[in-house]
Amino acid sequence: MKVIEGGISSVTSIRASGIYAGIKNQKKDLALIVADPVSLANPPIAAGVFTKNRVCAAPVWVCREHLQDPSVQSIVVNSGNANACTGDEGMSNARQMTELTANALSIPSDQVLVCSTGVIGQQLPMDKIEAGIAEAATQLSTTGGRDTAEAIMTTDTIPKEIAVEVEISGQPVRIGGTAKGSGMIAPNMATMLGFITTDVVITPDLLQTCLSEANELSFNRITVDSDTSTNDTVLLLATASAEHPKIESTDDPAYQTFSRGLIYVCTELAKMIARDGEGATKLVEVLILNAQTKSDALKTGRAVAESPLVKTAIFANDANWGRFMMAIGKSGAIFDPYRVGVYISDYQIVKDGMDAGYSEEIASQQLCAEEVKIRIDLQAGPASATFWTCDYSYDYIRINADYRT
Amino acid sequence: MKVIEGGISSVTSIRASGIYAGIKNQKKDLALIVADPVSLANPPIAAGVFTKNRVCAAPVWVCREHLQDPSVQSIVVNSGNANACTGDEGMSNARQMTELTANALSIPSDQVLVCSTGVIGQQLPMDKIEAGIAEAATQLSTTGGRDTAEAIMTTDTIPKEIAVEVEISGQPVRIGGTAKGSGMIAPNMATMLGFITTDVVITPDLLQTCLSEANELSFNRITVDSDTSTNDTVLLLATASAEHPKIESTDDPAYQTFSRGLIYVCTELAKMIARDGEGATKLVEVLILNAQTKSDALKTGRAVAESPLVKTAIFANDANWGRFMMAIGKSGAIFDPYRVGVYISDYQIVKDGMDAGYSEEIASQQLCAEEVKIRIDLQAGPASATFWTCDYSYDYIRINADYRT
Repeated sequence: MKVIEGGISSVTSIRASGIYAGIKNQKKDLALIVADPVSLANPPIAAGVFTKNRVCAAPVWVCREHLQDPSVQSIVVNSGNANACTGDEGMSNARQMTELTANALSIPSDQVLVCSTGVIGQQLPMDKIEAGIAEAATQLSTTGGRDTAEAIMTTDTIPKEIAVEVEISGQPVRIGGTAKGSGMIAPNMATMLGFITTDVVITPDLLQTCLSEANELSFNRITVDSDTSTNDTVLLLATASAEHPKIESTDDPAYQTFSRGLIYVCTELAKMIARDGEGATKLVEVLILNAQTKSDALKTGRAVAESPLVKTAIFANDANWGRFMMAIGKSGAIFDPYRVGVYISDYQIVKDGMDAGYSEEIASQQLCAEEVKIRIDLQAGPASATFWTCDYSYDYIRINADYRT
Repeated sequence: MKVIEGGISSVTSIRASGIYAGIKNQKKDLALIVADPVSLANPPIAAGVFTKNRVCAAPVWVCREHLQDPSVQSIVVNSGNANACTGDEGMSNARQMTELTANALSIPSDQVLVCSTGVIGQQLPMDKIEAGIAEAATQLSTTGGRDTAEAIMTTDTIPKEIAVEVEISGQPVRIGGTAKGSGMIAPNMATMLGFITTDVVITPDLLQTCLSEANELSFNRITVDSDTSTNDTVLLLATASAEHPKIESTDDPAYQTFSRGLIYVCTELAKMIARDGEGATKLVEVLILNAQTKSDALKTGRAVAESPLVKTAIFANDANWGRFMMAIGKSGAIFDPYRVGVYISDYQIVKDGMDAGYSEEIASQQLCAEEVKIRIDLQAGPASATFWTCDYSYDYIRINADYRT
């Protein structure tokens, strides 16, 4: 596997664009991604994973409907308006976005998926959306991935792209991704969106399985503030334009090769989101080792990564290990507190649940890094899990409270 | 029921003190509460509820041991040091605190309960504790409740006291309480402690039942930052010195009378803690109405009260209702998003899951109050629940991150 340039545009038979439609103020706000068919036997297909929030936005419902048949040729996305809590009119508008895109591309509307991100509770400006989709269709290009990455941003501070190439049966297969999330200077723009393209040739069921597995290990392991958006969506669009034999079983070694590449792409995008979290000054990796069960590893990792007291301590470069012990203990996981070890990078600060006799100065230096690794050894069993989060700074409050002043 | 003066000292046969032992810097840091026996038939008894954190402090273990026999005559408390994550030496020190108190009062050591709050992971300065307990014993008085309220503070901005008098069989029965928590200028001092005294005459089992019920409706319904301390403890000490017939059944109307008084005392103390939360500028009450089940009401209330995005919006006086919908939706409760109503005080901002056509100006005025009431009507069933929290301000970050600079 090698990392390559180009994001979603690194994939053969993908065209993309990102334009300014006037939904936001002066910034690109509408994107199209298109998978061009190369073979009747293996048409483009897609897979998706969605928010578990019961209050879920209209485009999420429409994606779920359209994915009942995995044949998908396009994704249309707007930023600046989430189309959430918008009732029947919102559902109608989300469907209309797929129809406008389908007309512009001369494809069936149920082969179009739709995503929105932005303010909750306002109706979409459909006149601007309509003109924007027409414009975006004319701008489609095989190098448009960067424009897409920019158009899906709300107030992310940087566009987020990654791509890798793996080899299957001697043929190159590419996986490219872009994502947005967590930079929330304007209100309500908390949605995490991820769009991944690939030219792999695979059955729809395996594509969905592979995305669900990768999502579980990547996007589901990041937390900025423990709040779950109404619009979270990750879509994987496969053009099937690579030239290897079709992957039809998880036992095929090619499935594992593709899966490793997809997990890498999803994980890198997830880390980019955590690093660009609201007010974040550093990326924090929380590694739980030797938990009794997988569930315990996940509970502990989440409790530590979500703890405001842990996150403010990391912001302050303060090896305040009592807060780690508190967070581990409240997780509900089963372990002996007096066997726990805690490390910052490789420097041990807690041994057998007590002060390891560490130097505050060295521990603080370890926390000063732009990427901080917290390792927690529960010594309770064989399970492990990794989470990514960011620290909590003054800017978290400023961004979320003061945007009107 | 009437509210009376005097806190824990309003109760007959209670003596209390609070002194400076030198654990903290210049502030009172050690307290004793004593219940003097008035009858051999009905000796003083106690009940307790404790942190569910698996990493729990040495004094919590000792309290649980000593409460296996409910006969209790005294509580000793220190602030400035949590005696948590302190291993065998910490356990030995917690036991020694009960022995030193027992010796000073000439009572058995298993009739003494012990609490600590403060920094995690350091051993108690036992020389200072020993001298402090001796001093505190000489200072015991029937008006010492205020000194106790002050000595248990860490960096709470105000001491917290309340007392009520109810009438049982024509006799006055008093319930007095003090609590600490949530003001954390120094690190790790997140513990919530509550001490309640009463002269009610009741069986030990009913005393515990009544405390557990009241705790569930009060202290378990507050959240400042969703983190759970290693030391949280609420103790209820009954002198049995009131003159009504002993309460021996939950069917006795006197049980309900006492229970109502106890719930009031616990709820008022809980609200004082939320109001004095780290960096808080206002008390926020979250009332969930018409949930399908009690569990759904609790899940929804907790999700809203713990959401950083909701809490920063309330700090900013911003009726950002999409955040309420997000928090309700992520709770896991079952309901129809398009039936939800949300009110700030009595002003409706969400109707049928969408914008109620409210005025931003009026909604913002409602949020400006020192006590903000958020009412969420799920229209899904008969269950309800109330939570209390505070807003998230810049000072939350300052208090938890910047204390070293």
